[in-house]
Amino acid sequence: MMKVAINGYGNLGRGVERAIAKNTDMELVVVFTRRDPSSITTLGAPVARIEDAAEWVDQVDVCLNCGGSATDLENQGPETVQFFHTVDSFDTHAKIPNYFAAVDAAAKKAGHLALISTGWDPGLFSMLRVLADAVLPDGRSTTFWGPGVSQGHSDAIRRIDGVLDARQYTLPVPATVEAVKAGTEVELSPRTMHTRDCYIVAAQGADLERIAKEVTEMPDYFADYDTTVHFITAEEMAENHAGLPHGGTVVRKGMTSEGTSQRIGFELELDSNPEFTGSVLAAMGRAVTRMAARGESGARTVFDVTLADLSPHSAEDLRAHWL
Amino acid sequence: MMKVAINGYGNLGRGVERAIAKNTDMELVVVFTRRDPSSITTLGAPVARIEDAAEWVDQVDVCLNCGGSATDLENQGPETVQFFHTVDSFDTHAKIPNYFAAVDAAAKKAGHLALISTGWDPGLFSMLRVLADAVLPDGRSTTFWGPGVSQGHSDAIRRIDGVLDARQYTLPVPATVEAVKAGTEVELSPRTMHTRDCYIVAAQGADLERIAKEVTEMPDYFADYDTTVHFITAEEMAENHAGLPHGGTVVRKGMTSEGTSQRIGFELELDSNPEFTGSVLAAMGRAVTRMAARGESGARTVFDVTLADLSPHSAEDLRAHWL
Repeated sequence: MMKVAINGYGNLGRGVERAIAKNTDMELVVVFTRRDPSSITTLGAPVARIEDAAEWVDQVDVCLNCGGSATDLENQGPETVQFFHTVDSFDTHAKIPNYFAAVDAAAKKAGHLALISTGWDPGLFSMLRVLADAVLPDGRSTTFWGPGVSQGHSDAIRRIDGVLDARQYTLPVPATVEAVKAGTEVELSPRTMHTRDCYIVAAQGADLERIAKEVTEMPDYFADYDTTVHFITAEEMAENHAGLPHGGTVVRKGMTSEGTSQRIGFELELDSNPEFTGSVLAAMGRAVTRMAARGESGARTVFDVTLADLSPHSAEDLRAHWL
Repeated sequence: MMKVAINGYGNLGRGVERAIAKNTDMELVVVFTRRDPSSITTLGAPVARIEDAAEWVDQVDVCLNCGGSATDLENQGPETVQFFHTVDSFDTHAKIPNYFAAVDAAAKKAGHLALISTGWDPGLFSMLRVLADAVLPDGRSTTFWGPGVSQGHSDAIRRIDGVLDARQYTLPVPATVEAVKAGTEVELSPRTMHTRDCYIVAAQGADLERIAKEVTEMPDYFADYDTTVHFITAEEMAENHAGLPHGGTVVRKGMTSEGTSQRIGFELELDSNPEFTGSVLAAMGRAVTRMAARGESGARTVFDVTLADLSPHSAEDLRAHWL
């Protein structure tokens, strides 16, 4: 039995908790939190203050860090790896090399192993992009996101004056996806690749026209896209937009000789982004536990993990039944 | 520069030759053959008898074995690994454990590394099945093959009396693929999953009705499928059926909690099966070269390879640009 700790009990932490319940070789031994432990009700595991992590060292094989990249993980990563082998979903792409260096130094000092930046993007999508590039070096990879809820864009709308709640769906443009799969010439720009659909609950008496204008003209987030704004009631929001679905597609088209085209495609269609991301973290936790047991230490990424280490099945079983 | 040998110059060997030309870190140094070397014209590399392999030991980093599983590889695998690190596409699933053991023993004795059973199925499809199972343990994986040419089924038709040439296309049943993706109840049997389309050039005066009956009633190959037979001319065969396209889909549907469904999909659409398979062998050759340089020996499968070892890009580059 692999003894797992979850650090942080938000959407992702709860997703990891459900993932651990689906893996018969894993046991959730503790949930760490910065909050008052008595304010948290898990599905059964005890809750402890992250400040008391040192007391759990002997009872935990791997700690899955479920904080957010923006604020939590930059400190959480190097701190928790002093006590445990760790896995996290750090996803601020530009900061990954610095984050890797900080975690690597702390992990080596402690003799622990840390796998950073996993989930599905970065994570499974990254793995497929590297695999497809290695197999088809003369080609082009394209990533489409959605249909799904972008939490960053939803938050940006919520910051607008008069907005009580908001949910932003990112949608790939079907004609562009088809053109990329077919290998026909197509412009790839924010506007041709994705559209944005916004569902907003406005405060009573708020100027809806102004809110819609502020959304569609917001630089970086919406101005470069065809954006649709729908005003809905709080009841409609609760009823139709409570989930966090997401997904996407990685397409690589490549040539292996003059006139010979090959396509590799990878798709995710997720009812729940945090539960799926949590499932990836749990599987990576298995790999980290095994790699650490062989004496590895320092920081790693998904590119350093074998499928044999990710899988619950033995090497013999994999060879006999999974090739 | 990675120095590569190709062993066997049939469809797959020529596919590997083209793949090596697309990889700027690889150089084809020799093509080995059992035939008379003077009967073979490569794109530029010298040709040598496989019996003279020992003379090439210092000039080759990895040997890509391109023989067929049915007859060639069972001997070729253990024999060539005495001289070189090797990669092959052994695909007789039931015999893989025995083949692995034989290659493993020979490889360890020689201090060489051998990666067996790669390509796309076994190969990339196997990798995706193991990855998807590790991430979504509570689920079901389904593999569809085609649209594409099945060489085994084409050969089976060619053995019928009165048949001059034949090409058999395996086609997934679109409604079944859609049902599996959607997660709706659907029967999964040979007949509901795939249809078989046969294009046959018959000898002049041959009994077409008898040939068609022998095809559609052939046990194992066709009797369990909806099979269509088309008689065409030799000219039509040459004009419309010269290629060896193939492809397929791996779908995993899984639940991460009550009512929360997640889908992982992987697709290949290949203009040329041997050129794509050859491209996978070339990339695996890179990984084997690197793993062997770190002192590994014995037999391995795709489950033992990291993406960092498959990729031509450095670990730093991968972290900075590919996550």
